[in-house]
Amino acid sequence: MSRFFSEKFNSLDPYVPGEQPRDMKYVKLNTNESPYPPSPEVLASMSPENAGKLRLYPDPESAALKDAIGKAEGLGRENVYVANGSDDILNFAFMAFSKPGGKVYFPDLTYGFYPVFAALHGLEAVEIPVKEDFSIDPADYFGADGMVVIANPNAPTGRILQLDDIRKILENNRDNVVLIDEAYVDFGAESAVCLTGEYDNLLVCRTYSKSRSMAGARLGYALGDKALIADLETLKFSTNPYNINILTQLAGIAAMESEEYYRDRCLAIQATREKTAAELIKRGFTVIPSMANFIFVKSDRISGEDLYRGLRERGVLIRHFDKERIKDYNRVTIGTDEEMDIFLCCVDEMLKGASK
Amino acid sequence: MSRFFSEKFNSLDPYVPGEQPRDMKYVKLNTNESPYPPSPEVLASMSPENAGKLRLYPDPESAALKDAIGKAEGLGRENVYVANGSDDILNFAFMAFSKPGGKVYFPDLTYGFYPVFAALHGLEAVEIPVKEDFSIDPADYFGADGMVVIANPNAPTGRILQLDDIRKILENNRDNVVLIDEAYVDFGAESAVCLTGEYDNLLVCRTYSKSRSMAGARLGYALGDKALIADLETLKFSTNPYNINILTQLAGIAAMESEEYYRDRCLAIQATREKTAAELIKRGFTVIPSMANFIFVKSDRISGEDLYRGLRERGVLIRHFDKERIKDYNRVTIGTDEEMDIFLCCVDEMLKGASK
Repeated sequence: MSRFFSEKFNSLDPYVPGEQPRDMKYVKLNTNESPYPPSPEVLASMSPENAGKLRLYPDPESAALKDAIGKAEGLGRENVYVANGSDDILNFAFMAFSKPGGKVYFPDLTYGFYPVFAALHGLEAVEIPVKEDFSIDPADYFGADGMVVIANPNAPTGRILQLDDIRKILENNRDNVVLIDEAYVDFGAESAVCLTGEYDNLLVCRTYSKSRSMAGARLGYALGDKALIADLETLKFSTNPYNINILTQLAGIAAMESEEYYRDRCLAIQATREKTAAELIKRGFTVIPSMANFIFVKSDRISGEDLYRGLRERGVLIRHFDKERIKDYNRVTIGTDEEMDIFLCCVDEMLKGASK
Repeated sequence: MSRFFSEKFNSLDPYVPGEQPRDMKYVKLNTNESPYPPSPEVLASMSPENAGKLRLYPDPESAALKDAIGKAEGLGRENVYVANGSDDILNFAFMAFSKPGGKVYFPDLTYGFYPVFAALHGLEAVEIPVKEDFSIDPADYFGADGMVVIANPNAPTGRILQLDDIRKILENNRDNVVLIDEAYVDFGAESAVCLTGEYDNLLVCRTYSKSRSMAGARLGYALGDKALIADLETLKFSTNPYNINILTQLAGIAAMESEEYYRDRCLAIQATREKTAAELIKRGFTVIPSMANFIFVKSDRISGEDLYRGLRERGVLIRHFDKERIKDYNRVTIGTDEEMDIFLCCVDEMLKGASK
């Protein structure tokens, strides 16, 4: 820290992303990327010819990209905000929709970045414990006095909220923004986007990083009432108006026009998820029912940390969290069938060792 | 504005970027892009093969890109910060290096985004008038009680500060960060980067958008003492750790390895600048001496706004600012020789009309 750093940020504890090893010798099941490549249309959009466009600034309104997203989601351009990854949106939402010094409500087990955003913007994080089975009780969020943030499906558990429950949370927070983070919605959960017209307090956040195989592109979007979207635009034009690479905008449009390709890949990931879960259950694991592209699992025979370390030694990366309540668990991204076979093989090897 | 928008931002007056027309029928001399394409190495880095890498998250440390920049600038990785365009860096610098509710000092005529950043972060903007000839008096910034921000060359004037003057400003602000915004430094000015080792209060900001023909890529970097850089990293990891597209990182490395290509293009732009300035002076224009890729000009025969409008009707975009002190002027980006011939032709046509 420099002697010039604002005292506001002195005690900031930044987010720690999952490992991104550069050597790629690992089976990488630790940061919920897709095991499948972007669609052929996305790949084709990255060409030396299109690269000539890098010379000029991108459209700061990202109008064509917003139109493509709006068309796919059944909403208008004015209901769509696009950003440099969904973290960029979450940050703005915490900044925009909380009273200075106010509160923000989210589950105690959820995306680890929420408490960081709260701290950054000087907000009190009210962390509401999820139930014993890691499910969320919607009633816990009724009548909050601050923004409510819920990832659906939740991470790292994979648990979902039903649309009716989200509706109840919206109903009981008419004066608070309810942010539904749908990073993982394309793997079997139901989106809340259909409620956009009904609730002016609903903001839905999405990413291209998971189901669209574009984590490296940095592209996320938010959907909601046009007034909420306008507020996000105000912050964007007060910080970084040209926020999205011109080729990323083209790739984002191409991805929206490859829905069939991506739907098939999402179905494949769901099939692999169920197969992997069944195999782990056979081996005595507890597997939390997941509607995401990951599963949250624990074994009675080997500790969460030992499993993580042992797999790492064997060339398989999964994600372990130190948090007391979930330290027995690990989050395992669903890869290809072949990758999950390697994962299971290594697990078997370790269990054999553990039972000696 | 929604009813949920934080009162902190109620009166925010966002930055208005120059027009980015989508139909491209204009000779575009309004947002200081390069008229030349990115280097062949940069174009080659955008390939369907590399696009396969979009599947995975980028390196959040951007280590390889930082190393390439550090090598080119003679500094270590720990002295380099990279971001999604230099606006992203400026925003963080205003946020990081000012006391809450404190002051920030910059010229009254400069990049129009500085007052917006100040307002966003609740800082008092102390706008120090530039001299009659638009030059900056370094003594005006001695002993400031807040961050000092100076664009060198300055925009929209093109005027420069000598390295000795920057040194004096640094000497006389040992307890304030002095941010030198070198967006336009590659067109003939002297960089302050060589002072990095001497002054822990110096932060230099750079962009790929101008001299490197990559405005569409969104890539900027900052150079400075490692403690300042670490503070920017703290903010990045508390907002958007994966801040740069994986292909943009590759393109940024390729550009750093094409220094000869870019040096030649910068020299061409400088030659065109001097030729255009001479032609305008012949036509009775006042042309402020510029070391940037634009010139700041006025005519006694036609108002700034009329010139802007007339050129627009003729298919040539330049940038006009409403600000009282400079409303007689226009900022004209230096394009190719051919583009500047078209510009001069249109000017001649208008002057002929004006003298009727």
